[in-house]
Amino acid sequence: MARIDVDVVVVGAGFAGLAAARRLRDAGWSVAVLEARDRVGGRTHTRYLDDGTQIDLGGQWLGPTQDTMYELAREYGVATFPTAAHGAPIYRIGDQSRSDLPSGAIELLNRIDALARHVDIAQPWNSPTAAALDGVTVRNWLDGQDVGDSDERRIVARMLAGGLLTAEASDISMLGLLFYVRSGNGVDSLLGMTGGAQQDRLVGGPAAIAAAIADSLGPEVVRLNEQVRRIDWDGAVTAHTDRLSVAARRAIVAVPAVVVDDIEFAPALPVIKQIALRRLMPGAALKLHLVFDTPFWRDSGLSGQCNLSSGWITETVDNSMPGRAAGVLTGFSYGNDALALRRLSEAERRDTVVRELSEVFGPRTRRELRDFIEFDWCAEPLTRGCFSARFSTGGWTGLGRDLRADTGVLHWAGTEYASVWNGYFEGAVLSGRDAADRAAELLPR
Amino acid sequence: MARIDVDVVVVGAGFAGLAAARRLRDAGWSVAVLEARDRVGGRTHTRYLDDGTQIDLGGQWLGPTQDTMYELAREYGVATFPTAAHGAPIYRIGDQSRSDLPSGAIELLNRIDALARHVDIAQPWNSPTAAALDGVTVRNWLDGQDVGDSDERRIVARMLAGGLLTAEASDISMLGLLFYVRSGNGVDSLLGMTGGAQQDRLVGGPAAIAAAIADSLGPEVVRLNEQVRRIDWDGAVTAHTDRLSVAARRAIVAVPAVVVDDIEFAPALPVIKQIALRRLMPGAALKLHLVFDTPFWRDSGLSGQCNLSSGWITETVDNSMPGRAAGVLTGFSYGNDALALRRLSEAERRDTVVRELSEVFGPRTRRELRDFIEFDWCAEPLTRGCFSARFSTGGWTGLGRDLRADTGVLHWAGTEYASVWNGYFEGAVLSGRDAADRAAELLPR
Repeated sequence: MARIDVDVVVVGAGFAGLAAARRLRDAGWSVAVLEARDRVGGRTHTRYLDDGTQIDLGGQWLGPTQDTMYELAREYGVATFPTAAHGAPIYRIGDQSRSDLPSGAIELLNRIDALARHVDIAQPWNSPTAAALDGVTVRNWLDGQDVGDSDERRIVARMLAGGLLTAEASDISMLGLLFYVRSGNGVDSLLGMTGGAQQDRLVGGPAAIAAAIADSLGPEVVRLNEQVRRIDWDGAVTAHTDRLSVAARRAIVAVPAVVVDDIEFAPALPVIKQIALRRLMPGAALKLHLVFDTPFWRDSGLSGQCNLSSGWITETVDNSMPGRAAGVLTGFSYGNDALALRRLSEAERRDTVVRELSEVFGPRTRRELRDFIEFDWCAEPLTRGCFSARFSTGGWTGLGRDLRADTGVLHWAGTEYASVWNGYFEGAVLSGRDAADRAAELLPR
Repeated sequence: MARIDVDVVVVGAGFAGLAAARRLRDAGWSVAVLEARDRVGGRTHTRYLDDGTQIDLGGQWLGPTQDTMYELAREYGVATFPTAAHGAPIYRIGDQSRSDLPSGAIELLNRIDALARHVDIAQPWNSPTAAALDGVTVRNWLDGQDVGDSDERRIVARMLAGGLLTAEASDISMLGLLFYVRSGNGVDSLLGMTGGAQQDRLVGGPAAIAAAIADSLGPEVVRLNEQVRRIDWDGAVTAHTDRLSVAARRAIVAVPAVVVDDIEFAPALPVIKQIALRRLMPGAALKLHLVFDTPFWRDSGLSGQCNLSSGWITETVDNSMPGRAAGVLTGFSYGNDALALRRLSEAERRDTVVRELSEVFGPRTRRELRDFIEFDWCAEPLTRGCFSARFSTGGWTGLGRDLRADTGVLHWAGTEYASVWNGYFEGAVLSGRDAADRAAELLPR
């Protein structure tokens, strides 16, 4: 068993772990990053079609105010390109298709936006009326509003509880939704393509940035195929993989919050921390890519973006690349629809999705389909969910502070712990830097 | 590595696992039960004071309609004795102490009871208005009622969401509460001492029954100190501990649902099962025993039972034993109060609880205290919670059927899967027998 000594050991080479490691290294501390996979980048992974079209299986977008990620992209020479945004979107509300949201839905979105402005993202549990907002589900709140018919309430539920938190509106609290909305600068910011969080993509995918950070740190620092099995944290800290023991003064644990459980801690984590971590529900979104020879929907003046008030798929986007022939429609399924799709066989799932999207985009959807690419992050033992994990009702007020609090020489990093852009790469990077700063402050010079 | 062959391997020697094993053995099948601990009985454990007073650290009570447990007690010669029930209870509503519940609280309990009668315990997700009931928290439902002032609503929330589900009323769905109430035959049945679920105790504690079942099976069947690390279930099944491999045709996994995760399954469990299991919130109750030389409260005509509408402790019961000198008051803390108590040191926790109960039972509480006994099941890695786990909002309708469904050659047993007396020993035993019957039906003769 090899043994190395460093100032800080970082567990996990996703965006949070890499950002933490770089921050510490830049400040002159010695660091080791232990990554279980044979690659860095966490919840992002990219494949390529024969024509070079990039398929981002995990997280993929950047948008305004995600300054840190844009800065990293610039610094490491990773180019961005705009998400395809030609033509008109489709909103299917009940049986009706239209190209804009009805006024009832807009009013509901506005109300949520207004409420979100009062949330304290640094301490959501200290927001005005936090306990009441955390005791009501998004579904129940929507049902209590005096605007919007049931279809309008449903599409709003699906756009927000689904599209943002990958959940059923029954699954999550209003406080959780409002925190998330505020954390990402409001509804328009979160839902928008151009000008919003889905504005830009990255050449090579976001993992290209992660790979560049890892390269800059070097293979002596970022060690792949090293799954941390146990962390001893009695005064100092030692992280053990099957082949390596890393002794350090402090540790930054930067694996997804829902897989922290898979590491043995000696001594055990404080029970309140265990309870807080266990209280998180992993996101359970399905991201499904339909590949065509061309983006045929553009011929009809459509953008490829749709939002459906009912059905298996909540939304689609045009995920084709500029300068490549292939057309890619990426559909997202959330909440109970995503669970139900998982109960089907792969063939049934493909048929179901193609049938539904044919109703939206016409018979060419079925006729010109070339490939159907799916990847379920929930089935990845090192990830166990996507986009990210969130609390059910009562979680933020009961356990929010415990989730975020450091534990002796252990610091927690990852997008689940982030105040700003929680659930996004930006949040992961910021949380990693914050953890690095907290660790560094306590390190003896 | 020793290897044995049996028809069915049972993982876990709590009540569900032992009941399953006995059922199978009685039907002529060969069985092995693998238990990680050095004892059987799962979430029950008993200690003794010097005078022989029995302190049940975990589950402890039996009541009417729990026929299976009474039958097992009789069969194995484990005697029952009535829970102490002398004198008057105290209900502290706001600042007022009284010996009965106010009418507003009673009306709220009646309404919940009436609603619960419509729940389908076999398939809660198929109950009338299941989706709506699963999308509203107990807190939100109570806030919407037109009877009871805020203190009355609060004591009802604490008696039901707390006392039954160990949760904050914000944490759980109305459907979850109603299912639980119906599963245990209604509010009176669940809350009652004499005539209710807290009617009787067991000499030696419930684990005495578990030990007797284990003895009847023999040490060749029930193997202690054998923690199952991996289960291969490709056609047949093999369960591996550090020392033993048990090959079988089928397996019954009867560990608490929230620790299933700690077993490696090869192949991995279907993702929908993983999601369903992960969606459970472990109960987080604290059960705290205050030991006195005598049950001094009886001198004032008090029963030792109290229910508080606010404060750290939700309820106390007289846990003294007939024929023993010591007085034992057992207090329960639930939800955010229990979490907050866990953030204190042991000494602070003791002081806090004693201070609060002194306000209820007078200065003798502090003056005559001899011992303070606590045991946190959440900190037990093989248990991770108490009383039992439950879904947050949206869980029953989204994932209830997946939680219960068998998985190929794997059958699931434990009180979390039970329809009848879910959360109780009775439910555990019934779920174990059911799993045994399902397994046996599929075994080749």
